[in-house]
Amino acid sequence: MEHDILNKIKCVSDIKKLNIEQLCGLCDELRDEIIEKVSETGGHLASNLGAVELTVALHYVFDSPDEPIIWDVGHQCYAHKILTGRDITGIRTEGGLSGFPKSSESEHDLFVAGHASTSISAALGIAEAKKISGSEKSVVAVVGDGACSGGMIFEAMNNAGRSRTNLVVVLNDNEMSISPNVGAMAKYLADIRSREGYFHFKDALEHTLLKIPFIGKSIFGILRSIKTFFKDVFYSSNTFEHFGFTYLGPADGHDIAVLIRTFRRAKQIKKPVLVHINTVKGRGYDPAEKNPSKFHGVAPFYKESGELKNESKYSFSSAFGNILCELAEKDDKICAITAAMTDGTGLKEFSKKYPERFFDVGIAEEHAMTFAAGLAAGGMKPVFSVYSTFLQRAYDQILHDASIEPKHVVLGIDRAGIVGGDGETHQGTFDVPILTTIPGVTIYSPADYKELEKDMKNAFSAKGVQAVRYPRDFEKTIPEKFFKNYEDFDFFEGKNDCIIIAYGRLFVEASFAAEETESSVLKIGKIFPLEHEMIEIVKKYKNVFFFEESVENGSIAEHFGNLLLKSGYDGNYKIHCVSGFVPHMEVKNAMKLHGLDREAMINAVKEALK
Amino acid sequence: MEHDILNKIKCVSDIKKLNIEQLCGLCDELRDEIIEKVSETGGHLASNLGAVELTVALHYVFDSPDEPIIWDVGHQCYAHKILTGRDITGIRTEGGLSGFPKSSESEHDLFVAGHASTSISAALGIAEAKKISGSEKSVVAVVGDGACSGGMIFEAMNNAGRSRTNLVVVLNDNEMSISPNVGAMAKYLADIRSREGYFHFKDALEHTLLKIPFIGKSIFGILRSIKTFFKDVFYSSNTFEHFGFTYLGPADGHDIAVLIRTFRRAKQIKKPVLVHINTVKGRGYDPAEKNPSKFHGVAPFYKESGELKNESKYSFSSAFGNILCELAEKDDKICAITAAMTDGTGLKEFSKKYPERFFDVGIAEEHAMTFAAGLAAGGMKPVFSVYSTFLQRAYDQILHDASIEPKHVVLGIDRAGIVGGDGETHQGTFDVPILTTIPGVTIYSPADYKELEKDMKNAFSAKGVQAVRYPRDFEKTIPEKFFKNYEDFDFFEGKNDCIIIAYGRLFVEASFAAEETESSVLKIGKIFPLEHEMIEIVKKYKNVFFFEESVENGSIAEHFGNLLLKSGYDGNYKIHCVSGFVPHMEVKNAMKLHGLDREAMINAVKEALK
Repeated sequence: MEHDILNKIKCVSDIKKLNIEQLCGLCDELRDEIIEKVSETGGHLASNLGAVELTVALHYVFDSPDEPIIWDVGHQCYAHKILTGRDITGIRTEGGLSGFPKSSESEHDLFVAGHASTSISAALGIAEAKKISGSEKSVVAVVGDGACSGGMIFEAMNNAGRSRTNLVVVLNDNEMSISPNVGAMAKYLADIRSREGYFHFKDALEHTLLKIPFIGKSIFGILRSIKTFFKDVFYSSNTFEHFGFTYLGPADGHDIAVLIRTFRRAKQIKKPVLVHINTVKGRGYDPAEKNPSKFHGVAPFYKESGELKNESKYSFSSAFGNILCELAEKDDKICAITAAMTDGTGLKEFSKKYPERFFDVGIAEEHAMTFAAGLAAGGMKPVFSVYSTFLQRAYDQILHDASIEPKHVVLGIDRAGIVGGDGETHQGTFDVPILTTIPGVTIYSPADYKELEKDMKNAFSAKGVQAVRYPRDFEKTIPEKFFKNYEDFDFFEGKNDCIIIAYGRLFVEASFAAEETESSVLKIGKIFPLEHEMIEIVKKYKNVFFFEESVENGSIAEHFGNLLLKSGYDGNYKIHCVSGFVPHMEVKNAMKLHGLDREAMINAVKEALK
Repeated sequence: MEHDILNKIKCVSDIKKLNIEQLCGLCDELRDEIIEKVSETGGHLASNLGAVELTVALHYVFDSPDEPIIWDVGHQCYAHKILTGRDITGIRTEGGLSGFPKSSESEHDLFVAGHASTSISAALGIAEAKKISGSEKSVVAVVGDGACSGGMIFEAMNNAGRSRTNLVVVLNDNEMSISPNVGAMAKYLADIRSREGYFHFKDALEHTLLKIPFIGKSIFGILRSIKTFFKDVFYSSNTFEHFGFTYLGPADGHDIAVLIRTFRRAKQIKKPVLVHINTVKGRGYDPAEKNPSKFHGVAPFYKESGELKNESKYSFSSAFGNILCELAEKDDKICAITAAMTDGTGLKEFSKKYPERFFDVGIAEEHAMTFAAGLAAGGMKPVFSVYSTFLQRAYDQILHDASIEPKHVVLGIDRAGIVGGDGETHQGTFDVPILTTIPGVTIYSPADYKELEKDMKNAFSAKGVQAVRYPRDFEKTIPEKFFKNYEDFDFFEGKNDCIIIAYGRLFVEASFAAEETESSVLKIGKIFPLEHEMIEIVKKYKNVFFFEESVENGSIAEHFGNLLLKSGYDGNYKIHCVSGFVPHMEVKNAMKLHGLDREAMINAVKEALK
């Protein structure tokens, strides 16, 4: 497809010069560009295709960056990136754009987003700042219905309605988060959608009336009062209006003319408005419309067929799901909880086999954790399966609800360590530091599936909060002599005064590095609390190297060093950790950059042996 | 007052034998007991007085512990404690009861609570466990309207409504959290309250009808259908019903007969029910009814007058508020945010002087933090003033929304360190460990008001997240020679090979200990990131003692040790930190118990000098 219209847009405000037909053409071209580029690199496809008209209409009506658009979760911002002058070729890969809003890329990305449900809070802050400064400019938050299960949306709505700011919240309702939506709010939105006819009628009538000069507006005014009365009587006011928002919608999120009219009205209202639009995830690309979950975050695929270019491998997530099913077959107390990540965390089979013991709570990690603690208090053995980065949301609940009075909750921490293309907002490099602050927590970090199974069995037969963390990866083989005994720690003696300490997948790298350098290796399986016997082994070495996929402050390496220091160790202890926030790039490149790869290990030892 | 009825209750089920008159008498006696005992020790008075009838009626209708009552926040459980056989004499003091539910005290306290908005999540977990086990028993959650501004309540409601469990949520609506309530939900509840007459009519009619044997029930059935129809038409269904709850109320929360009838009906319904009751905070004690904020958490007072026994001193919180007002006078970008703690965090004056720059967001720490980041993105200089323990709720927001792309947000962290009578759920011993995991965060911990002022000025003129943390305490004087220069660190040289390191209020103890032992002292003002020059000073000492009011993992002491280890230090480094969760007791006793008092410091040095 030629991108004639798109190519003429030099500045986002150029959109405002286009007519409806051209705008529709622009949408087609944007879709084509997104499908083309995402098929090459992978990325969030379905949500981006659903948000094309929405994005064009927003930029048509509002004046970004003065009227900023804050994208919730942020993975639907590709059209926005293109329209604001960015090339999405190579998105999510090193040197390419981030898959999420990023202010260093563009002044049109005012606020970062990778975690859900933050947009209204951020937009309200910006809107209040404008109000204080005397500006009448609008601030737009675009939030999906999936994110509406998150408590922050409620907290923000509870404050926004009364704020007298020019805040426009666009509820992009596609009946999905990553998995299909759950919960009362999803049902409620479905109820509203079924009333769609009403708004269509109202909108068309209004549009016609407003075309009549002078008289049109006053007739419209009278009619509007009457219609509002009828609407309130027959449809009752809705929840958003209870919150103090003016509610507009539901509107067809793929009809550019309707969207522009609706957003214009929202902009005029000069108080908080909620615009409810219906969109179809994957819109305009058949494979994605038919299977939006697969095309939510997708690997590179053949554009024509929608088939993945590389078959997906059996991963730690899959292994976790399978082991859990086996354990649950023998123990009817085992329950599983996910926060809208049934597929991602490998729980699909469990959810089918044990529906009565499976709970998808929506994007609601805080609730998920305390709910798990409640299940435990009721005698169940719950596992909360969650990405490391999203577990950050539940820190207080792990501490306050599950640890002050210990509850036997297992945490299945997926995407632990460096994650790759998702970048800064999704790195699993903080769970170890925060979990180790909480008295009574136990943490396992398996290096392969067999160890994962052992760790899960241990976790389910222990007490208190038991975390098992594993990477977004598949297991890799190690040199034979580094066969693991799967004890709390395994020690492999080398031939010099250097020892490498590692856990999880870094143990694989460590074993190869040790083979090449003939140094010793300490593999930690139960990474917290640390067994003191390890200190006795390690303190004999002149050079100790700890490699860890975590930020340094609060890392196991730091806790280990603390024990070494107390033991009177006086050799060289070197910590190799993740430094700061890790941008999007392939995992292996990030490992290299942060000095966590095999080569870095070999160099460290060789340097010491000089 | 004689406690004739109360004294006869040997087991909580004895309540079920009492008639209405006796139940009313029991309520009077409970009130008397609570006022008497809280006047001696201090504690949460107003909320407990408001919940007396509610508590009696719940225990009359439900069978605790098989039908557990989960108290949200938990500070309204005194009547519950008394009725379940516990003596509240000396509550919140060492050896006395906890001021919050505590399962080690009683099987009737199934779930801990000190932070708000967790009860429905926990109760839903227990209810699902009962459902899986085939039990038809109810589970009750009692939640105040104040806690309803917290996102977890929404997340839990979103899941609970469809759960088909026998969950009974009692919404104890007293129009207050700690400060008067804010937000759309508060307004919405007020709207419902204004319709109270309807329920009274319905309830009275039903009560009369049900007294007619045989016929009464069927007439009632027909009438109920009609009334439901009318109710839906005229009152519209309410938000709770959208969530899938059966809504009962609003009912008079001080009318024991109405409460019993309503709870019985809720128990019969066998699906999630929300019972909305109206209570008066401080009910039955004039000074508390008139000033519920003062009597929310109150120090010992004279029962007759309500006057405090000891005048409250000018505290770090007050100093923070005053300094902030001064800064805000000169800088109109400074905004202040509180999560329902205007008084507690010393912001009252600010809220009056600068209402347009003051935001009480309700109990909603997650939103508060991201909202602050939004204000910063809009060009303001926000401070989020929050208790250390509640900041735990906002970990992900500090990291994801304010640090990945640094936003200039100041955190005023009150109640940092050991807090005293509130105990485990409220200790400020985790903020340092979690904040130091986040790249780019700066932390100050002043030892007195002058330093607090300097730190706040620094924080407002820097970039990124700037935390200033101070204790629930007032400043204390130090020996003259330990006059502070208020640099990032101050070094005081002694006469032996021992050095004590401390910050915040522990520096006062350290200075006295150093005076007595002639050892050196390092006072850290900017506690994170650590200045490397300090390592050069400290590594010369054979004995280093770090005293810190924090858990050890992730503490500054640990980070400091890490730097020492890297520097090749081979002396004795001893960390004295808080061990585990600290129960309720006076701060000075907790300090002693955890080896953080002056005496412990002196002994440590003397031991080393032997």
